[in-house]
Amino acid sequence: MSLREIEKLLEKVKAGEISIQEALKTLKLMPYLDLGFAKLDTHRHIRRGFPEAIFCEGKSLEQLKEIVKEMQKVSPKFLALRASNEVYEAIKEVAPDAIYYPIARLVLIDRKEKDSQLAVNRLPILIITAGTADIPVAEEAAITAEAMGNPVERLYDVGVAGVHRLLDHLPKLMETQVCVVVAGMEGALPSLTAGLVSCPVIAVPTSVGYGASFKGLSALLTMLNSCVPGIAVVNIDNGFGAGYLASIINELGIK
Amino acid sequence: MSLREIEKLLEKVKAGEISIQEALKTLKLMPYLDLGFAKLDTHRHIRRGFPEAIFCEGKSLEQLKEIVKEMQKVSPKFLALRASNEVYEAIKEVAPDAIYYPIARLVLIDRKEKDSQLAVNRLPILIITAGTADIPVAEEAAITAEAMGNPVERLYDVGVAGVHRLLDHLPKLMETQVCVVVAGMEGALPSLTAGLVSCPVIAVPTSVGYGASFKGLSALLTMLNSCVPGIAVVNIDNGFGAGYLASIINELGIK
Amino acid sequence: MSLREIEKLLEKVKAGEISIQEALKTLKLMPYLDLGFAKLDTHRHIRRGFPEAIFCEGKSLEQLKEIVKEMQKVSPKFLALRASNEVYEAIKEVAPDAIYYPIARLVLIDRKEKDSQLAVNRLPILIITAGTADIPVAEEAAITAEAMGNPVERLYDVGVAGVHRLLDHLPKLMETQVCVVVAGMEGALPSLTAGLVSCPVIAVPTSVGYGASFKGLSALLTMLNSCVPGIAVVNIDNGFGAGYLASIINELGIK
Amino acid sequence: MSLREIEKLLEKVKAGEISIQEALKTLKLMPYLDLGFAKLDTHRHIRRGFPEAIFCEGKSLEQLKEIVKEMQKVSPKFLALRASNEVYEAIKEVAPDAIYYPIARLVLIDRKEKDSQLAVNRLPILIITAGTADIPVAEEAAITAEAMGNPVERLYDVGVAGVHRLLDHLPKLMETQVCVVVAGMEGALPSLTAGLVSCPVIAVPTSVGYGASFKGLSALLTMLNSCVPGIAVVNIDNGFGAGYLASIINELGIK
Amino acid sequence: MSLREIEKLLEKVKAGEISIQEALKTLKLMPYLDLGFAKLDTHRHIRRGFPEAIFCEGKSLEQLKEIVKEMQKVSPKFLALRASNEVYEAIKEVAPDAIYYPIARLVLIDRKEKDSQLAVNRLPILIITAGTADIPVAEEAAITAEAMGNPVERLYDVGVAGVHRLLDHLPKLMETQVCVVVAGMEGALPSLTAGLVSCPVIAVPTSVGYGASFKGLSALLTMLNSCVPGIAVVNIDNGFGAGYLASIINELGIK
Amino acid sequence: MSLREIEKLLEKVKAGEISIQEALKTLKLMPYLDLGFAKLDTHRHIRRGFPEAIFCEGKSLEQLKEIVKEMQKVSPKFLALRASNEVYEAIKEVAPDAIYYPIARLVLIDRKEKDSQLAVNRLPILIITAGTADIPVAEEAAITAEAMGNPVERLYDVGVAGVHRLLDHLPKLMETQVCVVVAGMEGALPSLTAGLVSCPVIAVPTSVGYGASFKGLSALLTMLNSCVPGIAVVNIDNGFGAGYLASIINELGIK
Amino acid sequence: MSLREIEKLLEKVKAGEISIQEALKTLKLMPYLDLGFAKLDTHRHIRRGFPEAIFCEGKSLEQLKEIVKEMQKVSPKFLALRASNEVYEAIKEVAPDAIYYPIARLVLIDRKEKDSQLAVNRLPILIITAGTADIPVAEEAAITAEAMGNPVERLYDVGVAGVHRLLDHLPKLMETQVCVVVAGMEGALPSLTAGLVSCPVIAVPTSVGYGASFKGLSALLTMLNSCVPGIAVVNIDNGFGAGYLASIINELGIK
Amino acid sequence: MSLREIEKLLEKVKAGEISIQEALKTLKLMPYLDLGFAKLDTHRHIRRGFPEAIFCEGKSLEQLKEIVKEMQKVSPKFLALRASNEVYEAIKEVAPDAIYYPIARLVLIDRKEKDSQLAVNRLPILIITAGTADIPVAEEAAITAEAMGNPVERLYDVGVAGVHRLLDHLPKLMETQVCVVVAGMEGALPSLTAGLVSCPVIAVPTSVGYGASFKGLSALLTMLNSCVPGIAVVNIDNGFGAGYLASIINELGIK
Repeated sequence: MSLREIEKLLEKVKAGEISIQEALKTLKLMPYLDLGFAKLDTHRHIRRGFPEAIFCEGKSLEQLKEIVKEMQKVSPKFLALRASNEVYEAIKEVAPDAIYYPIARLVLIDRKEKDSQLAVNRLPILIITAGTADIPVAEEAAITAEAMGNPVERLYDVGVAGVHRLLDHLPKLMETQVCVVVAGMEGALPSLTAGLVSCPVIAVPTSVGYGASFKGLSALLTMLNSCVPGIAVVNIDNGFGAGYLASIINELGIK
Repeated sequence: MSLREIEKLLEKVKAGEISIQEALKTLKLMPYLDLGFAKLDTHRHIRRGFPEAIFCEGKSLEQLKEIVKEMQKVSPKFLALRASNEVYEAIKEVAPDAIYYPIARLVLIDRKEKDSQLAVNRLPILIITAGTADIPVAEEAAITAEAMGNPVERLYDVGVAGVHRLLDHLPKLMETQVCVVVAGMEGALPSLTAGLVSCPVIAVPTSVGYGASFKGLSALLTMLNSCVPGIAVVNIDNGFGAGYLASIINELGIK
Repeated sequence: MSLREIEKLLEKVKAGEISIQEALKTLKLMPYLDLGFAKLDTHRHIRRGFPEAIFCEGKSLEQLKEIVKEMQKVSPKFLALRASNEVYEAIKEVAPDAIYYPIARLVLIDRKEKDSQLAVNRLPILIITAGTADIPVAEEAAITAEAMGNPVERLYDVGVAGVHRLLDHLPKLMETQVCVVVAGMEGALPSLTAGLVSCPVIAVPTSVGYGASFKGLSALLTMLNSCVPGIAVVNIDNGFGAGYLASIINELGIK
Repeated sequence: MSLREIEKLLEKVKAGEISIQEALKTLKLMPYLDLGFAKLDTHRHIRRGFPEAIFCEGKSLEQLKEIVKEMQKVSPKFLALRASNEVYEAIKEVAPDAIYYPIARLVLIDRKEKDSQLAVNRLPILIITAGTADIPVAEEAAITAEAMGNPVERLYDVGVAGVHRLLDHLPKLMETQVCVVVAGMEGALPSLTAGLVSCPVIAVPTSVGYGASFKGLSALLTMLNSCVPGIAVVNIDNGFGAGYLASIINELGIK
Repeated sequence: MSLREIEKLLEKVKAGEISIQEALKTLKLMPYLDLGFAKLDTHRHIRRGFPEAIFCEGKSLEQLKEIVKEMQKVSPKFLALRASNEVYEAIKEVAPDAIYYPIARLVLIDRKEKDSQLAVNRLPILIITAGTADIPVAEEAAITAEAMGNPVERLYDVGVAGVHRLLDHLPKLMETQVCVVVAGMEGALPSLTAGLVSCPVIAVPTSVGYGASFKGLSALLTMLNSCVPGIAVVNIDNGFGAGYLASIINELGIK
Repeated sequence: MSLREIEKLLEKVKAGEISIQEALKTLKLMPYLDLGFAKLDTHRHIRRGFPEAIFCEGKSLEQLKEIVKEMQKVSPKFLALRASNEVYEAIKEVAPDAIYYPIARLVLIDRKEKDSQLAVNRLPILIITAGTADIPVAEEAAITAEAMGNPVERLYDVGVAGVHRLLDHLPKLMETQVCVVVAGMEGALPSLTAGLVSCPVIAVPTSVGYGASFKGLSALLTMLNSCVPGIAVVNIDNGFGAGYLASIINELGIK
Repeated sequence: MSLREIEKLLEKVKAGEISIQEALKTLKLMPYLDLGFAKLDTHRHIRRGFPEAIFCEGKSLEQLKEIVKEMQKVSPKFLALRASNEVYEAIKEVAPDAIYYPIARLVLIDRKEKDSQLAVNRLPILIITAGTADIPVAEEAAITAEAMGNPVERLYDVGVAGVHRLLDHLPKLMETQVCVVVAGMEGALPSLTAGLVSCPVIAVPTSVGYGASFKGLSALLTMLNSCVPGIAVVNIDNGFGAGYLASIINELGIK
Repeated sequence: MSLREIEKLLEKVKAGEISIQEALKTLKLMPYLDLGFAKLDTHRHIRRGFPEAIFCEGKSLEQLKEIVKEMQKVSPKFLALRASNEVYEAIKEVAPDAIYYPIARLVLIDRKEKDSQLAVNRLPILIITAGTADIPVAEEAAITAEAMGNPVERLYDVGVAGVHRLLDHLPKLMETQVCVVVAGMEGALPSLTAGLVSCPVIAVPTSVGYGASFKGLSALLTMLNSCVPGIAVVNIDNGFGAGYLASIINELGIK
């Protein structure tokens, strides 16, 4: 129920067109959050153009096509995550302009509305990986951040095995106002990075590794236990979540 | 080695006061990061007045007094975490102006330098707890954020058992540009909150609970696995880390 | 040994047809529980028509056909769980009237005896999912509950990411006398639901998720640690168990 | 905001005492759930007299006294869980009629209002333990159920080590319409019980045990993995939750 | 209901003193297992004199005294495990002849009936520990085995750090028909022992260790994963279980 | 035996005081590990005919054929475990008389030497499963026990869901002198069985189950934490280990 | 930036060719570690010829070819780990001299520069496995160690099930100055070995096993908890790490 | 050595073809485990003066005094670990020259024999900690290494939070031939260090931390999963093990 509808209702009450009891009944049954939430959701979109995301794994091609069709009706821009090439082909049938990012395993469906100019004055988000195997997760973060209107700088394969690789980019590190650090195995790179910079560091553990890495658990624990403050941890392999979080933080810093 | 010192060295080289070989030796042995890091550290302080923190648990009173004495020489403002009243009494011997926050189990040592006016134009950070037992961790976050120059609003005991308690404060939620959500047991509050707001939500699992809460593991996993994007997770009971992270995010949004 | 057989034995004792010692020996070896249990099992069936269930995973088609053949002799209605289409085809060979529910991955074998009219006066069981990926587990619960004679209402994809989706159905929630809430990832929906309703909430964690969801462990712990009382937890992905439990609870409320 | 207040507002609109815009503003800011939730909470109480519960562990005596004072204003009957004798003494200062159950480590604060007659026609809830060490948890469940108006039958120390101890009470088992089974160590008793009865079995793992019982984890897993349907699992040592769940199930069966 | 009672019942039926229907009713309600189980329990005792055991941890002195009093009525010999000296003093009040084994933390209550001569012809059980810290658990096993009528040989502190310590006793190892091997830390001794002998090896992990021993989990896993067949694992620190199991195996080999 | 003693022995040999054969015998009994082991191994074989076992999973067909060829040279009878039909075909190429047990996934290579008559006077080993899905592991135990010369009785699908199924076979249970109980899911059957019998119970957890069964961990913990003494636990799915252990225990009881 | 470049810069300052401010800017931006690290890396290579390693799993053939091409430019010798035959074929396209070790699943790319003669005077590294299934990991260690210039002795399949197999090689064990012990399942062999030798023992747990081996966790814990000092543990299945560590230890002992 | 070979040897002795001493020598080298071990142990001591260690936790003062008394008879130098001051006082009663290191919680009992001069030409072992709370474990390593004759350099509190603290000591790092790195919390320091040096790095996780550090598990996993080769991991808090391992590695490099 929109504010306008409530207004109309009040007008009818005032005009005596409906009784107070009838109005009361309508208001009582009013899905209370409609007014708040619908507005919120719209508002969110206008302000930020953030994409919602569909997690494709474990869904059939038919289901995905149905969901994309529905999403297109309400959302000008959204992402399909963990999408194989086969998934992309299916989505393209219902969303012909969908773009596929194979490394990030991600499909972007974008009606290209008025969002693009919003992000003009943003600083780039720096996205860092420890190894090359972490790149798919980093790209998921990067495409997400770009879809949300942020420039992105990529700094890949600068893990702690050779600390100078990271230190070589210290000036760039010190300029960024939010960075995403993606690392598997021992996951020490976010700690090291956060010790160098003063901005928020979003740490993304990956399932890259073997043996006692326990599919990313080791990297996750490392990041949670960092002795350096300023680290925000997200779920294992959650590139989308990291890109999203980086975007809403980066947005705060727009001058 | 400061930039000024390097400049002087170069002047001496130019003036022929020292040989190139001597200058080279000095530069070669120059603790390479000194110039970068010392500056960085100072720079950090000037810009932000962020406190370093001492973790008191497992340190003797003698050790803590020694560390506080050393810290006072280099840091105008810092925190001692997980401090019992006995620890506070010991610290006061070497830092008479230290202030004790018993609920947060935290001591603030603050030389009260030029930081205070810096934070004038910051928006408040909203700090939310699910239950009353989560308040000590929330207060650790709150005092940290305040020590870093942020106004703080507290919204305690609004857990998911009665969702209306949180919804009652929706307007406040929608205004904040970063919030900290502290919850033990099932730890569902950050998900719920992040579904309502559009700003970054810093989720702090606490060790409050029993049985299969496994000292906060359950709440931690809940927060990491949230289906709502925009959540930054920190370690179990890590109020300091949450307050710190909230501060450096909040700082970005200063107009 | 049936009561009738014992009666006959006693008659023989009375008539002196067998000695006391012989009767004693027979009674001593009497499978003591036969009389109690056989009756119990029959009794159960008459009263409730509850289906037994075969877990198909890890059984060969031959084994399954054999088991179904045996089950048909003793049970008028039963379920085969985690059944692929291939399994269904095999079962149909020995149970031609078997019905396949592909989303629930479930086969129902029902001789359609006198159970159906028993459930006439039951209230519907409400089955809720957090996401669309939780639907297969929810459908396993739903078909089970229906097979046990309950009407079922489905309320799918109302997870905590948008709390208004659940709140929109508050009147329906408040009417039900038992509901099943199926959720993966952080598994917070049962807590939220139980905070809104006053009836028992059966919480089913699913293995939907990735990374630190650890195949449903995260959702399971969330549900066990709920700060809201009134939640009954079943095993991960155990739709059958939830539907069964909901049925025997719902049956109590028949007027 | 109560329905009455909205009604008054509408009357003022009708009477032209306030403008539509003013009324709209009031309604817009109206804490939307107030009307729904406040009613709900009251409604709950009238219907059921269920106690809320305070978890005492980790709260100071001062905090507990404060909470009890506040609770007394809104709740005619509630429980304080995990309460030591010292906690009880503190609570008694602010709630002189509080009753202490030392085995259950539980304090009942009961204004003795109109609830008592409600439960007249309920069947007893059967509460079973595997061992004597499980009794404190069982008593927490029992007192909770009694406080919620249910008769309780106790059947303690009938664990699987001697299955005849349980079988001796088969008639009683078969009569109950909900039972609570409390067990530590291997936690097999709920499975065994659920194989004998046709009613819902609420399984409570306890932290009783040593070694690989991992403080109740073993019993918890056993109960979750039961091959017998009809088992509702609650958290380790969660006697309150079990008693509460049993009560709202038992209530369904009132004739 | 004893066999004798059933016999009497049958006599009454034969004599026409009660009707068949009355007899049937009595038999139907007869706690079916009484005849089987009571006999079984008595039978067990006569044959073996095995002690039941009370786990003292977490029970109050009053409870323990009560339990011991009850046990004395039905059991000629039993053990109280994990008993402090204080517990022993309490038990002695109700069982003056109780004997305390402080290293094993065990109290033996023994009416010294006809069991002792039964075990005359048993071979000794060999009980081995890896370290001296494992001795309390080993002694719990040893006293249990002795209480069950077995001679025991102790071979302590022969862990894998110096394999010659075990090999020096190879002849003794090869003679035994069952041995118990108690080890904490890495728990490798049972594997090594089982590789040398051909008799069953009962492996008891202990919680001795630190760090990644996780209170005995490491030793437990080692023993379960042994590449040598012939190893029977019991719970961490479960000396009683090991001694009991060794006894019932050893008893098989009596010539 | 000290160096001095060996020296003396050599002196006697030189002096002709003892024969070479006598000296040899003394020396032969000394260095137990050089000539001791060969003897031991031979001795073992003569006495018991126990099969060694090859774990086939993760080995190539070529490797397996090579290992079987080597084993045939030294071992008259052995097993290949976890063998697919394809593995069997490969083994048959080098061991034409190999017999395949498809349910147990086991190949027996048996030269049929003098062992068979040894086991004449053994009692049967009772092998019990909770469900039908546990049968492959039970069969691995059964074939192993049979290969080691034991008669085996199978009692399958008698899990705790219907306790009467086990109780129906109580006389058989009470006669056996060792039994193997195989169970997945909650794994409660060994506890129940051990509460009924007085002989050693070898408990085999299986990986049968789903969700929180964690591939057999739940069943394993249940068995380790059993409150009933007399249970020997082996690794998850370790049918071979159980059959082997049962055999060497059963052998002790030969009259 | 090399020392030579800094020297040139200083010369220009001295010569007045550039201003002090320009020099300062250059130095300030100078990647501070370039001088230290580049030298270090070169130095490492000259001294030791150690191979870097590419972890192939999870990388596409295209990515691997690209990485190998890049690596060849900077590294005279390196390894590709976890390489299937297909990976090898791809690598050979860009590195025709690449050698494949199928058991170790490892490709060696070696330009055969001046390293070979360096290792002339090294002692052999002893590489031991518990079982045959551990050989692939052992071979990864062996080829790595050989690629780093060490002679290697292999001692395979000498696990604790038959301790004499290891003891037979005691003289060889006592001669080595570093050994690698590879074991899965219970992982007890490193403890046993370390109890016999006085040199460092590098313990490599493997994922060989089943059930409660939890993919190598059991063996890992065993090795970490060893009661014998002198054991260095590496990650599960980390043959490369073990071979590398053994090499840099072995290198210390060159006479 | 086969029986036949021994027989031949005896024949030669009898025939006087070889002397008794020659035969003795041959035999002496054979049964390695009887006379071999004693020799080995002595040999070890002469060469290295390594201390054995007593783990004091969980042992009574009486037991410890007894053990120390026994140890003094056979070992000229040994350590008592995890020793409180009270333990030290007890040890001093039987070993008056015992020295206590309170930070390392370690007692050294040293008869000051001929070992001291052996270590003259060793390079120092570098012992590094991440934080001050890691110092007790580092000191345990340091004292152990010193007791084994090594000079030790300490570099404490140089964790990754400020990477320049470690880099400042790069020259020292590059000189050492073995270093020990002690770290709790996220445990990233060994990775970082190993990326800088070319010598073996012994990584010691500590239980320092809170929340998701799980008493050192997080740091342990980090170290095991390091992407940098050359790291040897020991158990959590195992300073003794690290010091011991460092010593036997360092000893290899003696010129």
